[in-house]
Amino acid sequence: MARDIGVALIGQRFMGRAHANAYLKVVPFFDPPLKPVLRVACGRDREALADFARRFGFPEYTTDWREAVAREEVGLVDICAPNDLHAEIAVATAEAGKAVFCEKPLARYLAEARAMLQAVERAGVPHMVCFNYRFFPAIRLARELIREGALGEVRQFRAIYLQDWLVDPSFPRTWRMVRARAGSGALGDTAVHIVDLARFLVGEITEVVGMLATFVRERPLPDGSGMGEVDVDDAAAFLARFENGATGVFETTRMAAGRKNFMHLEVNGAEGSLFWNAEDPNVLWFHSERDPAATRGFRRIVVTEPGHPYAGNWWPPGHMLGYEHSFVHAVYELLSALAEGRNPEPSFRDGVAAQAVLEAVLVSVEERRWVAVDEVRGG
Amino acid sequence: MARDIGVALIGQRFMGRAHANAYLKVVPFFDPPLKPVLRVACGRDREALADFARRFGFPEYTTDWREAVAREEVGLVDICAPNDLHAEIAVATAEAGKAVFCEKPLARYLAEARAMLQAVERAGVPHMVCFNYRFFPAIRLARELIREGALGEVRQFRAIYLQDWLVDPSFPRTWRMVRARAGSGALGDTAVHIVDLARFLVGEITEVVGMLATFVRERPLPDGSGMGEVDVDDAAAFLARFENGATGVFETTRMAAGRKNFMHLEVNGAEGSLFWNAEDPNVLWFHSERDPAATRGFRRIVVTEPGHPYAGNWWPPGHMLGYEHSFVHAVYELLSALAEGRNPEPSFRDGVAAQAVLEAVLVSVEERRWVAVDEVRGG
Amino acid sequence: MARDIGVALIGQRFMGRAHANAYLKVVPFFDPPLKPVLRVACGRDREALADFARRFGFPEYTTDWREAVAREEVGLVDICAPNDLHAEIAVATAEAGKAVFCEKPLARYLAEARAMLQAVERAGVPHMVCFNYRFFPAIRLARELIREGALGEVRQFRAIYLQDWLVDPSFPRTWRMVRARAGSGALGDTAVHIVDLARFLVGEITEVVGMLATFVRERPLPDGSGMGEVDVDDAAAFLARFENGATGVFETTRMAAGRKNFMHLEVNGAEGSLFWNAEDPNVLWFHSERDPAATRGFRRIVVTEPGHPYAGNWWPPGHMLGYEHSFVHAVYELLSALAEGRNPEPSFRDGVAAQAVLEAVLVSVEERRWVAVDEVRGG
Amino acid sequence: MARDIGVALIGQRFMGRAHANAYLKVVPFFDPPLKPVLRVACGRDREALADFARRFGFPEYTTDWREAVAREEVGLVDICAPNDLHAEIAVATAEAGKAVFCEKPLARYLAEARAMLQAVERAGVPHMVCFNYRFFPAIRLARELIREGALGEVRQFRAIYLQDWLVDPSFPRTWRMVRARAGSGALGDTAVHIVDLARFLVGEITEVVGMLATFVRERPLPDGSGMGEVDVDDAAAFLARFENGATGVFETTRMAAGRKNFMHLEVNGAEGSLFWNAEDPNVLWFHSERDPAATRGFRRIVVTEPGHPYAGNWWPPGHMLGYEHSFVHAVYELLSALAEGRNPEPSFRDGVAAQAVLEAVLVSVEERRWVAVDEVRGG
Repeated sequence: MARDIGVALIGQRFMGRAHANAYLKVVPFFDPPLKPVLRVACGRDREALADFARRFGFPEYTTDWREAVAREEVGLVDICAPNDLHAEIAVATAEAGKAVFCEKPLARYLAEARAMLQAVERAGVPHMVCFNYRFFPAIRLARELIREGALGEVRQFRAIYLQDWLVDPSFPRTWRMVRARAGSGALGDTAVHIVDLARFLVGEITEVVGMLATFVRERPLPDGSGMGEVDVDDAAAFLARFENGATGVFETTRMAAGRKNFMHLEVNGAEGSLFWNAEDPNVLWFHSERDPAATRGFRRIVVTEPGHPYAGNWWPPGHMLGYEHSFVHAVYELLSALAEGRNPEPSFRDGVAAQAVLEAVLVSVEERRWVAVDEVRGG
Repeated sequence: MARDIGVALIGQRFMGRAHANAYLKVVPFFDPPLKPVLRVACGRDREALADFARRFGFPEYTTDWREAVAREEVGLVDICAPNDLHAEIAVATAEAGKAVFCEKPLARYLAEARAMLQAVERAGVPHMVCFNYRFFPAIRLARELIREGALGEVRQFRAIYLQDWLVDPSFPRTWRMVRARAGSGALGDTAVHIVDLARFLVGEITEVVGMLATFVRERPLPDGSGMGEVDVDDAAAFLARFENGATGVFETTRMAAGRKNFMHLEVNGAEGSLFWNAEDPNVLWFHSERDPAATRGFRRIVVTEPGHPYAGNWWPPGHMLGYEHSFVHAVYELLSALAEGRNPEPSFRDGVAAQAVLEAVLVSVEERRWVAVDEVRGG
Repeated sequence: MARDIGVALIGQRFMGRAHANAYLKVVPFFDPPLKPVLRVACGRDREALADFARRFGFPEYTTDWREAVAREEVGLVDICAPNDLHAEIAVATAEAGKAVFCEKPLARYLAEARAMLQAVERAGVPHMVCFNYRFFPAIRLARELIREGALGEVRQFRAIYLQDWLVDPSFPRTWRMVRARAGSGALGDTAVHIVDLARFLVGEITEVVGMLATFVRERPLPDGSGMGEVDVDDAAAFLARFENGATGVFETTRMAAGRKNFMHLEVNGAEGSLFWNAEDPNVLWFHSERDPAATRGFRRIVVTEPGHPYAGNWWPPGHMLGYEHSFVHAVYELLSALAEGRNPEPSFRDGVAAQAVLEAVLVSVEERRWVAVDEVRGG
Repeated sequence: MARDIGVALIGQRFMGRAHANAYLKVVPFFDPPLKPVLRVACGRDREALADFARRFGFPEYTTDWREAVAREEVGLVDICAPNDLHAEIAVATAEAGKAVFCEKPLARYLAEARAMLQAVERAGVPHMVCFNYRFFPAIRLARELIREGALGEVRQFRAIYLQDWLVDPSFPRTWRMVRARAGSGALGDTAVHIVDLARFLVGEITEVVGMLATFVRERPLPDGSGMGEVDVDDAAAFLARFENGATGVFETTRMAAGRKNFMHLEVNGAEGSLFWNAEDPNVLWFHSERDPAATRGFRRIVVTEPGHPYAGNWWPPGHMLGYEHSFVHAVYELLSALAEGRNPEPSFRDGVAAQAVLEAVLVSVEERRWVAVDEVRGG
């Protein structure tokens, strides 16, 4: 018999909409063992919130997240608020004994992320961080191939994540460009995704050396009251070593004119390679040294076959999935884990691990040297 | 104040799911002036139907489509049943004075399509045929560019639509491979999409000459009772002339090993060209002779900017949409038209027009000559 | 001990330069058993010819092709002159008992092509037509794969060959736009290449139905003396059946804005597919149904490995070859055949066969019906 | 009146063949003001050398490079020998008062490179280093676009150069894997190309931090006498800052299974971006923020138009050039400069500048910190 769980969703913009959509779609397409029921939406702009709640079918809404967390009918708190609220909400949720699903980056700083992990573990509540890129079918297939040894020993990982929404110097200074609120810029916002995918596909990162850049140091304030300082990075890059000896090269930017959501990653192993691009998300490219020499080449695998991860729940082969489907898959895994009494993955531990890498990059930038992740983790 | 309309959805497989999903998503993302309310689901397999209804939130279901059409709370009948049922259901819906939204192809044969058009016009009910490809943002943008003269005089159109689901000879003989039920094979199933897009982008087709092929003439019956004849085409191709003097080359097949849903179309004009591929659906390629010679080239337009058709209702730039979004847009246009008392587009007139082209192809194949579309249309 | 053969090259423009270059390069890179020695260059514009001869190292040049053919030191006559001269020169060469290498299309009309074949066979001289696209390594590999059954039964062939050099209406009316000199337009100039490749990869074509279009009917005369009529096709398309039951769809145009030398061909068989594009000439795409389902996809084969056709004679893997290399390979095959006393391939028989297909298309256009190639061939 | 210059070519393998080919082709296609005359070929393997000389038309050959340099008829010494011979030969050539054209990397180490520069400057002989990638038409066009401000302020550069020839652990340990002979591994062999292109397109690099990796530490000796140590890098990556404030990310490897000669570079500026890939060398991708928002996108520029750099000397648009053409263009620039009494570019100064960056990377790897290029340059 199907059970359900009440959801409080905190945040109503980009991520709020992506998560709300995922709860709506997971039922018809995945029939999860635990059904999410949208109970209350939470945000700051009351008027917009009323509209959001009406559209997505939340029976209630509130501008007070504490109230939302506290509601009896809420069993799962989904945090899509700005980064500076993650910790406070997550801790409160844990203390309320409820499951917590938090957008990335888990927190602004490693210490904050750790406090969150401590809180959920102390409280014994289920916790998950929304590294949605793990849930693209092609990424899932990539991981399966690596796990089963299709690439042999993994030796090199490279990933770039390029956007261009800050190329326009008149784009306003939102909270994402304020260190006190966001923690960092592109590093925490987009690099964190490729750090998580690196961990997911290759393993732990042990040391890094990085570089940050801010190309536009002042932007108009959103309220039109003048200019405000940008004190976070527009772009970030770093070199890395993995525990297994592999090398990693990472770069992200919000200033690559013409690149919209261009995440491109490649893994090279002793017996094969694969690469993937988020702007062509249904396709995984796979090269195997075991193919006959004359016809060896990267295979363009359209990851929409019935046997491919998640794909069989959607449409026939070649009928492409989009960005939002990754969230549906994430929510499905979350609900499945909750139903089975397991903690979902990626958990806050993964959130902390990714944050530790970012923190090591920040230290490395400040001290202009390689930094072991253990140094910052205190491991 | 928002009004709503009750929907009866007939069909629960591929198209039934695509349409049900569209009704669920159109509200949060497009806030249409008329809200669709899923009232009753209809299908043949009662057990599967119960599951379908439950997942998508239909309060009722029935295996009797007449009952579904007749229900008082139903104002819109959405036909996703096999082709041989389109006419009967559409006519009954029209006679019941309700709006009708019908999957493509409108009918098996031109005569049937015409009878449907006559019925809806006689009854004065709104009617729409679901040529969903019209509603991809990139196709919409293509049409805008052509309309505003960005290509100059349009001279050449070419489209291929390649799938491979029949390459496997053990794939069963479903109703789609039986002429009496489907009308034709790839021609009516997939060529009809590129015929509609040709009409949408370029204009009316005046004459055609075609060729059909069936490569596997016998397949296992779905019930395991032996082999059954395939009496429709696995593949179809035809040459065409448009009213405006342009040439057209069309090809479709279910036998192109490795091609999953590979619809590729290109338009060449006197001052520019554009092309699009359904396996990379967010991208429109546009070449303009008006660009400076040294930097002229096809532009890869990622059609996800706020100003692009439909795109602003979804995610930030570069966060890709998938196949299913085209149905959401179609349903949004349907509901908007109903709310405003207009007949939606594409209407049954478009369904008939596309069907006339297919019929001319069939005659052309039989008589091994060019056939004017007016010949079969009796125009 | 290496022997050599004296070459008379007739024509000094695009093809003249491509052939001259091929003779220069074949020696260092292929060390053919018979060495070509450039003896005499022939063309109409004496001043340009002197320059051409000097640059490519011809010790002599003449504006009289008969003189060139007659020279004692000439053993091979290479015809790169306009189409209306092919027959006359080829027949004279045959009568002089010399080997003849002729650019495509073999002739303006089928009758002319046949006369040429008759002449070379009567005289017993070696003959080859320069269908250079056969000699791209990727095409060679494609043929090998088809021959060894990698695609299973071949069922469908499609090819487009798009250029845009006539989009500009002020482009002058050269001999290529005059039927009396060229025979036809895009049909004989570019479609002939894809007809030959279809024969090379799939087999004989038995019947066709086609369409021609001329979009710009008047162009400036090259000498500035006014406007001249264009009485050939700017674009051509046709459907075809092959002897083995496969279908074919062909299209070519000189009016596809933005397409420079865009030849794209695809072959679908019962167990695999392949495609190739002349704008990315080193890459062959190959899909096999025999690959495991989860990792099946078109392989991007970079055809530059030592074991690939011709590739080992050039550079290390991934160091790309260009258009001109196909001519070097063609000349290498020509010289190898001459050295071994075989007739080279493709021979004038292939030229005639391709011409018969074009002729059937022309009849089909005139009579608006399917035409068997045997009808025009009188076979 | 055309003058000529005698060439001694030292090296007969990959680069020897590429240079010899360039001298043969530059005359017919570029008609340079100074004609190269192949005088003497030089190499170690006498038998192979005789064959090489015969094929490319050298009247003489010798295994003693000193003799070749000394010959009176030689005015230009072209060094394609292994890296450990560059300095000695270049210095001897300078002392003989002859022009010197040297393959990259200029030398094994910075000190060696500097000594070479000193020698040629002291002797007053013309000098050029063969960074052939500068001479691809697309790269040339890229530089023109950047120079004329099409990208606005240049902010980010990224380049990867991936090969896979060392993935096979049984590939023998040639001189390229011995530090004493090669100086470094992938760093000096392939990274040097992207360092030079970065300097060519963006400007001087001021500081770097890098990482090296060797994945296979022992390989079979070429003579079959056992295993030999690999003491150079299989892969290298580094972060960089440019003088103009731009950031740079560089990676190269010989271990990226499936990547043959995959050099991919991208430049992002305040008003546009461009990227290029050596496996599709005729195409430059260019995005301009100045294009209208609705049709903005990366343009695929096929750099084969008559007005494009070097392209007009070859074939009609879309008839692709290959890898080897870059050498023809390099040699053309060399000969043009010599004819005009200018020193060609890139000169040994550029060779030294690139070498200084590599050296800074090596120090940075050893000391695990950022290193200013001036530190190693002693600037």
